[in-house]
Amino acid sequence: MTRREFRDLSTPREATEAIDALDVGGGVEEQSPVEARGLVLAERIDAEIDVPGFDRAAMDGYAVRAADTFGASEGEPVTLPVIASLKPGNAPDATVGEGEAVQVATGAVLPPGADAVVPVERTVEGEDSVEVRTAVAPGDSVMPRGADLAAGDRALAPGTRLGPRHVGLLAALGRETVPVRRPPRVAVVSTGEELLQPGAKLDPSAGQIYDVNGHSIAAAVEAAGGKAVRYVETSDDAAALRETLSAAAAETDLLLTSGSTSAGTGDVLVELLEEHGERLVHGVAVKPGRPLLVGRLFDTPYVGLPGYPVSALSVFRTFVAPALGEGIDQSATDAAGETEATLATRVRYDGGRLRLLAVGLVTDGDGDRVAYASTKGSGATTTLVETDGVVRMAPETSVLAAGSTVAVERFDDAPIPTLLGVGDPDPAFWRLLDGLDRTRYLRLADADAGRWLADGIPDVAVTGEPTPDGEELAGWRREWGLVVPQGNPAGLSDLGDLADGGRQFANLDVSISLRDAFDERLEAQDVDPDAIDGYHRALPGIESPARSVAAGRADAGLGLRATATDLDLGFLPVGSQRLTVTLNRDRTGKASVQGLRSRLDESLDGLLSEEAGYESVDQ
Amino acid sequence: MTRREFRDLSTPREATEAIDALDVGGGVEEQSPVEARGLVLAERIDAEIDVPGFDRAAMDGYAVRAADTFGASEGEPVTLPVIASLKPGNAPDATVGEGEAVQVATGAVLPPGADAVVPVERTVEGEDSVEVRTAVAPGDSVMPRGADLAAGDRALAPGTRLGPRHVGLLAALGRETVPVRRPPRVAVVSTGEELLQPGAKLDPSAGQIYDVNGHSIAAAVEAAGGKAVRYVETSDDAAALRETLSAAAAETDLLLTSGSTSAGTGDVLVELLEEHGERLVHGVAVKPGRPLLVGRLFDTPYVGLPGYPVSALSVFRTFVAPALGEGIDQSATDAAGETEATLATRVRYDGGRLRLLAVGLVTDGDGDRVAYASTKGSGATTTLVETDGVVRMAPETSVLAAGSTVAVERFDDAPIPTLLGVGDPDPAFWRLLDGLDRTRYLRLADADAGRWLADGIPDVAVTGEPTPDGEELAGWRREWGLVVPQGNPAGLSDLGDLADGGRQFANLDVSISLRDAFDERLEAQDVDPDAIDGYHRALPGIESPARSVAAGRADAGLGLRATATDLDLGFLPVGSQRLTVTLNRDRTGKASVQGLRSRLDESLDGLLSEEAGYESVDQ
Repeated sequence: MTRREFRDLSTPREATEAIDALDVGGGVEEQSPVEARGLVLAERIDAEIDVPGFDRAAMDGYAVRAADTFGASEGEPVTLPVIASLKPGNAPDATVGEGEAVQVATGAVLPPGADAVVPVERTVEGEDSVEVRTAVAPGDSVMPRGADLAAGDRALAPGTRLGPRHVGLLAALGRETVPVRRPPRVAVVSTGEELLQPGAKLDPSAGQIYDVNGHSIAAAVEAAGGKAVRYVETSDDAAALRETLSAAAAETDLLLTSGSTSAGTGDVLVELLEEHGERLVHGVAVKPGRPLLVGRLFDTPYVGLPGYPVSALSVFRTFVAPALGEGIDQSATDAAGETEATLATRVRYDGGRLRLLAVGLVTDGDGDRVAYASTKGSGATTTLVETDGVVRMAPETSVLAAGSTVAVERFDDAPIPTLLGVGDPDPAFWRLLDGLDRTRYLRLADADAGRWLADGIPDVAVTGEPTPDGEELAGWRREWGLVVPQGNPAGLSDLGDLADGGRQFANLDVSISLRDAFDERLEAQDVDPDAIDGYHRALPGIESPARSVAAGRADAGLGLRATATDLDLGFLPVGSQRLTVTLNRDRTGKASVQGLRSRLDESLDGLLSEEAGYESVDQ
Repeated sequence: MTRREFRDLSTPREATEAIDALDVGGGVEEQSPVEARGLVLAERIDAEIDVPGFDRAAMDGYAVRAADTFGASEGEPVTLPVIASLKPGNAPDATVGEGEAVQVATGAVLPPGADAVVPVERTVEGEDSVEVRTAVAPGDSVMPRGADLAAGDRALAPGTRLGPRHVGLLAALGRETVPVRRPPRVAVVSTGEELLQPGAKLDPSAGQIYDVNGHSIAAAVEAAGGKAVRYVETSDDAAALRETLSAAAAETDLLLTSGSTSAGTGDVLVELLEEHGERLVHGVAVKPGRPLLVGRLFDTPYVGLPGYPVSALSVFRTFVAPALGEGIDQSATDAAGETEATLATRVRYDGGRLRLLAVGLVTDGDGDRVAYASTKGSGATTTLVETDGVVRMAPETSVLAAGSTVAVERFDDAPIPTLLGVGDPDPAFWRLLDGLDRTRYLRLADADAGRWLADGIPDVAVTGEPTPDGEELAGWRREWGLVVPQGNPAGLSDLGDLADGGRQFANLDVSISLRDAFDERLEAQDVDPDAIDGYHRALPGIESPARSVAAGRADAGLGLRATATDLDLGFLPVGSQRLTVTLNRDRTGKASVQGLRSRLDESLDGLLSEEAGYESVDQ
């Protein structure tokens, strides 16, 4: 096993400059205006025709010689013979002579001879004639040829991102195509023997996982204005990888890989770069993102991103997206934008490297934004959707104080959650949240949920032990016990049987409040936890022990009656636990909090009656 | 001609309620996560599998039984035989027995028997063995099965708009498809005999125009989250229109037309609605937008928008887009968003109706936004791209004061211009602007440009007469005269010849400063303007008279030598006019203004030397 150390880390600025110098340009292409929506004009567009292309009636009415209406009024109308009628799209087949009129609809050509239009409201229609009850001047109610846009005039600026309105103007000019900056084609290459694509059957025992980065980086490329092309290479063979990358290089403007560039077993990419390209940067003083690799491979710009999903996305957002946007439209990259937020709690950092701190955002009672640091590391896939962007902490910074204002670089333009809940993973509460759009719920242990509420972060907390801060909003009881296979084949009757040996038990993690209830009951019944086979094998999800039982990996598991019913398993009741929903008092004015209140009022009883083993409690 | 008056206008609220009641929903459809990007989850997504699906090595190193490392240190390493090596994607083929180790790479399955990983940094590799130089505890450097996301856990909230990160998480869960709210299919029906599609050859003499609304409304539908389907019916025949609309109704969730709903000749749509549907609203107290029509046609929701491009888009933005977004994602509609801005000048309005005032936006020296009312009406196509959104003026409002803060409802998320210039249409200045991205230039007469600069609206003004306010930034001279056909077939020699009769002259509009220079010269040479055939036929664009000459519609036209050269026409020089570029002193700090300065420094001399008849002047 050869190992590569990052002895000479580049600075973030050096990495940015190296990526800029790669010059990932897509060039210019012609597109129809409709297909060009969202793209950026490469050149100025001048009008090649007059708009309108003819003197145009601007009102429904009568085209006349203005001089013929001289002196006309309500009291003394002038009567003119109507010699023709014109609608939009009609070529005039008559000339308006002295004392004559032609009926016109808005948008019709002003017929030759006429120099004004009398609005229909100021006329009285007769048989083959019209009474004109007002005098008009030459040019009245006429839009002259070219008055909107004259041939030769500048119509659209270079660099304009084409929206609906620009498409409309280009249509008015009759443009079939326009030159736009071509979005760079970006190869998103997924590598690794362990990767499966969604839809394929996973074999976890062989360490297989679904490919996350291939999808999230491809989507991020598109969000940054590029065109993503995915490549998947699951062979570990250097020749196969070389083949895939060389094909991708021939077809795209930028190659992206993720993982396999850190010190470790997967140095194939680094070697390929040395053999078939040029290495500009390997290792950057940024956390996460140290293994960033920049260079050219097979004559194509190449960036190797870190492997952890959030690291890969953060580094892409910070270093690569701006370079993609530069070639097309800086504002596209900026669309995700920066948001100012107040940092909820102090963040410490043993500096020395730039840190990209992943944070979540929540709106406080005044409509301002509060940022909180992620509870999980960049290796967790869930951090992807539990955070909204990154805060840059400079290498020389070691502390960001609670309450300080930070600039959050958003990952994308996804709206931030309407409501932030934290606490226990309770199926009934999740069903309550189903009635509201775009809520976020972070699983936290009781003590952590209470602390977060005290720090003013979430809108609501759901806990086993009531939290001291906040307003108690609702509560209910849920029945818990031992989940067993249907028919209870091991013949368990109470908790004491777990300690008799010969039974595999599946426990819940201490972060879930039900575990506290279980431990209290063991102590009350004087059962020695260490005598329970599997007591220390705590599982992470509220359903995990029950699912272990269903899969035959355990004889009994700690869980809810509701879970046993959902998974069609047997259940031995042990106790009932009270859960409390506590509201952050500063958030009572939020629309989403009011929405939650009404949902509790209207739907809680119904929801509880539908979940097995749930019952309401008197407030 | 039957006429329909709007005797009972609905209120804007009634129109909104009627459109909401149409319930334009797209339903739910299954999409692959990648195709679902930008769409909104219809239901909650729970994890169906554990992520990771196995106990996973979190570091490169050695999988061991933690108990075997007890007491190990740098000074007293423990040596363990290495019985196997595992990479990500390898199924373990060995069990770690007491006193044994298996080499693992990050992401590999923790082999059976092992309960911890010793990081490679704390080991020394031997032949078939490893020296462990630290003690580890059970669980160290291992990510347990389901620790990221446990089967049964809530993974994504209903209502989540799927961004790159959500796509990544769905990939991790192995989801092939997810239920998303289907964007409503919206029929954008263009009607009118006068309409041509871009690419077709226009016959302006027959009043033909290119279809603007079909394109701009279709693009606005897509920007609001819908799926636009275009239909074009150029036949005036009621049966043909009925056929087209009934086909469109069968294929879509909402029918949109524009124009043909106002009082006038085109009442076919109103009659169709009465015969084959239901009319809910006809006429709304809003300006522009009075002829708004709402109902159901062939069992499909129907909205008839006004015909003028800006009116159609404003009414769509205000009344229809929110209803489209409601079915899918309110935040998509809000993406265009509201911007606060300071109104530059007082706006008067003879109220009684809600007014949607189209305004342009510019960033001032402090980065704040200034709004200015459009110079052109809603009938002008150019207003589409010279404004950025609308300000709602309530019916009871008659004046908005200069300096008041207004909420601008953006038409879309197109970035506002970087630099706002106003004044004379000068080809050389436009070429200067070509070097900057996303500039806006509004053509204004000298006096208006000076007034706008005094009101603090534009960044720069370009005028013939120097303006009293601001800093003179640059200036140049341009040669002007009579543009004639090649070879000067009419044998003109000076301005006096124009008044001799028999020659058709094409003049410039008084809004272009060159016209002032021309009029002064006529007066100096004692030439009677009224004796010039065509003097009063003033044309709107700087190139319009020259283009009239090129098209054979005039014998001579007022214009620049540069235009004559560009259009390959003859030229009789008459004079030279000085143009001045004046900077708004409050904007000197703007990046775009600094960009303009550098471009003037670097490129002005070169640009002037490339334009025929231009020369620099000493500042």
